[in-house]
Amino acid sequence: MRNIKVIMAYNGAGYHGYQRQNNGDTIQQTVEEALSKLLREEIVINGCSRTDAGVHAREYIFNFKTENPISCEGLLKGTNDLLPEDIAFLEVCEEREDFHARFDCKGKEYEYVIHNSTVKNPFYADTVMRYKYPLDEKMLDLEAKAFIGRQDFKSFCSAECDKEDTTRTIYSFDVVRENDLVKMRVSGDGFLYNMVRIMVGTLVCINEGKIEKGKIKEIIEQKDRTKAGITVVPDGLYLNKVFY
Amino acid sequence: MRNIKVIMAYNGAGYHGYQRQNNGDTIQQTVEEALSKLLREEIVINGCSRTDAGVHAREYIFNFKTENPISCEGLLKGTNDLLPEDIAFLEVCEEREDFHARFDCKGKEYEYVIHNSTVKNPFYADTVMRYKYPLDEKMLDLEAKAFIGRQDFKSFCSAECDKEDTTRTIYSFDVVRENDLVKMRVSGDGFLYNMVRIMVGTLVCINEGKIEKGKIKEIIEQKDRTKAGITVVPDGLYLNKVFY
Repeated sequence: MRNIKVIMAYNGAGYHGYQRQNNGDTIQQTVEEALSKLLREEIVINGCSRTDAGVHAREYIFNFKTENPISCEGLLKGTNDLLPEDIAFLEVCEEREDFHARFDCKGKEYEYVIHNSTVKNPFYADTVMRYKYPLDEKMLDLEAKAFIGRQDFKSFCSAECDKEDTTRTIYSFDVVRENDLVKMRVSGDGFLYNMVRIMVGTLVCINEGKIEKGKIKEIIEQKDRTKAGITVVPDGLYLNKVFY
Repeated sequence: MRNIKVIMAYNGAGYHGYQRQNNGDTIQQTVEEALSKLLREEIVINGCSRTDAGVHAREYIFNFKTENPISCEGLLKGTNDLLPEDIAFLEVCEEREDFHARFDCKGKEYEYVIHNSTVKNPFYADTVMRYKYPLDEKMLDLEAKAFIGRQDFKSFCSAECDKEDTTRTIYSFDVVRENDLVKMRVSGDGFLYNMVRIMVGTLVCINEGKIEKGKIKEIIEQKDRTKAGITVVPDGLYLNKVFY
């Protein structure tokens, strides 16, 4: 049995998230349908991660098994032609038989993009969060360093999260400005449900003075979701890289 | 009566064109509803131009009359808050009483954006035309110069066009490359129905060898739509500037 690994990118604006569900278009379903059509057999893919409705991916990894002898290049081109313009296969290759996109994943990097401007840009719709008030990216970059390390992130996890163990290791958290875009880039060994969006929301609340500077460590210790900031919209969130 | 001029930008991907119609969301209707809500009176706007379904605008001008004493800044901010993210008011000012966005318009500039790449970019969806085969932008730039001047553009007008007089003056037509984007920029005193999309489609056909180089003047003289190239998709078309 061949084990095929695919790197893809997608704009999540038009989808109800990654994972297959009964109602609404999802990335998984759209990709499985295109692959099944091309290969003329029912394909089920193993994704590296779930992403929520409206969240994007610049590098998403999945694998699937097939006996079909199609070349990796043929599979790349053939599926891209069948997929809509907002989902793109970037790379296809063969992997060792026991490779699994989710179980073998060692970590991920997310980026959250904020359009920090009083002027709307209609061409950014659905791919950024717009924020009208000035963001102090240098101050927020310092504040964000408190997220780094192996810590219990229960305060930064949606109430809907069903994980017993809420301890995760954050490797890096950087806030940088590129003209009117402020980018928050965070990498770690794993992320809880809504964790990145709540961490970004907490930084936004610090910028607004709704949460005091220097409080992130204390909020982490409190293990209480209500002490952290808002959950920002999914539009600005990108799964950037997946580590193996 | 105050005469208010507005400069706006919009992403047309989600709309059935500019002009109000019975079925489907249009830019005009969405803007009129936001203004009517803000000013608490029924507002009708005079747009500078129609744009087709899926076509975008970086600078679209319209005017409307009101007795409301609201400041131009208040109107800008208030309407932007009511409008969706894909329509943005950029500037609002007061004009002389007889200014009319359409009748006073002296010319326009359009830009057509082609993503010239074998690799799909999911974040360009709906805002470019993707074209897989190499485009020779220097050759096309020379070919496009044949459009310049006062000429009868009947060959470059949709069969649905109901204009008696199909003579227009093209001031400039430039084809430039910016990495994997090829931009075709054309300005003139007026444009027929689908004219820019057929001119771009003709250049694409020349690139493919389906139409011979050096034939544009002959196609213009033939006054026959079937001699020109395809009508390219609306996704890559931007109303760029409006001249008064």
